[in-house]
Amino acid sequence: MEKGLLYETVVSTVNSNQTANAAPIGIICKDNNTVVCYLHQGSSTVRNIKRNKKFIVNLLKDPMVFVESTLGNLSENYYASHKDEFYIKSTDAFFLANVISMKDVERADQFGVSVTSVVVADVSDIFKQKECVEPLNRAIYGIVEGLVYLTRMEMVSGEMEKLYRHRMVEINRIVNKVGGKEHKNAMKKISEAFSKYD
Amino acid sequence: MEKGLLYETVVSTVNSNQTANAAPIGIICKDNNTVVCYLHQGSSTVRNIKRNKKFIVNLLKDPMVFVESTLGNLSENYYASHKDEFYIKSTDAFFLANVISMKDVERADQFGVSVTSVVVADVSDIFKQKECVEPLNRAIYGIVEGLVYLTRMEMVSGEMEKLYRHRMVEINRIVNKVGGKEHKNAMKKISEAFSKYD
Repeated sequence: MEKGLLYETVVSTVNSNQTANAAPIGIICKDNNTVVCYLHQGSSTVRNIKRNKKFIVNLLKDPMVFVESTLGNLSENYYASHKDEFYIKSTDAFFLANVISMKDVERADQFGVSVTSVVVADVSDIFKQKECVEPLNRAIYGIVEGLVYLTRMEMVSGEMEKLYRHRMVEINRIVNKVGGKEHKNAMKKISEAFSKYD
Repeated sequence: MEKGLLYETVVSTVNSNQTANAAPIGIICKDNNTVVCYLHQGSSTVRNIKRNKKFIVNLLKDPMVFVESTLGNLSENYYASHKDEFYIKSTDAFFLANVISMKDVERADQFGVSVTSVVVADVSDIFKQKECVEPLNRAIYGIVEGLVYLTRMEMVSGEMEKLYRHRMVEINRIVNKVGGKEHKNAMKKISEAFSKYD
């Protein structure tokens, strides 16, 4: 994981009845040993982390794990035990995150103001289950998608053009949120080229 | 590269004046030794491949290479020679594609009918410059994005809801175009859950 980047992961935690829970969570790599994440209030993940002060971060790209942990919960046979926590068996790698601090803050976004828990944790117990592990970062995908829109701008008009413009704003936001310096520089070039259609 | 998946690559070819040319191209992995790509008429890439009957496929994630090869061309110092071809120095891996067949077909898409060259090529001279090479496939990104929209559907209305719906159709199309069986199954689950908002 590279400093400053936000990765799409699946976090697994332990419920009060000792069963496992999992949810997709974006994890920011702060430095070699520290991660940060922002959790919306009201989820089992927040409650479990508040209670247990630790969680497992699963680095994986299995599409069904993302879908099922979002729509409901993963069935029991997806999990294996690590100490008193659970990780996801099919994960490429996982680590244990030990909470250093957890603070509730009010954050305003496009959907209004909500309470978010800012969790800072240090990293231990890193296990790789595949030789090559590349955690999921969305920045390069945003770049590729932005380039597609850019090269199509001469072909579109009306409703479609409006959609492309809206999507470009969103891509710009995402790349600057999840990407590194090189991604941000590349996105800036795309935005500059895009602005000639203003 | 996994059979059936489409990867985002940068293809480098040799111009008639022996200089190098590069452009982002989607490459479909047909089997262990064969790739397929669809090229729009009129580009240097098509002309060069028609003339030389071979091209280099660069597997990389360097955002600036994608941007600069789309907006204009890469400067000379980006390239190194392999036999009488050029590859991109910073690439994670590259291989030589030798054209087996090239056929011009008329294809209809959202922008109308255009002539596309279907290129089938076999693969040789595979070089890895990084120990771990994972070529760029957009399917998991579509899955993650689709899940974001799905979980936000209760929070949006009006114009924003319309955008989400439109984007979901597009994501569905992309995942089914570039993804494998597991991606398609996962996307089907997302679409089913999304349809409850119809």
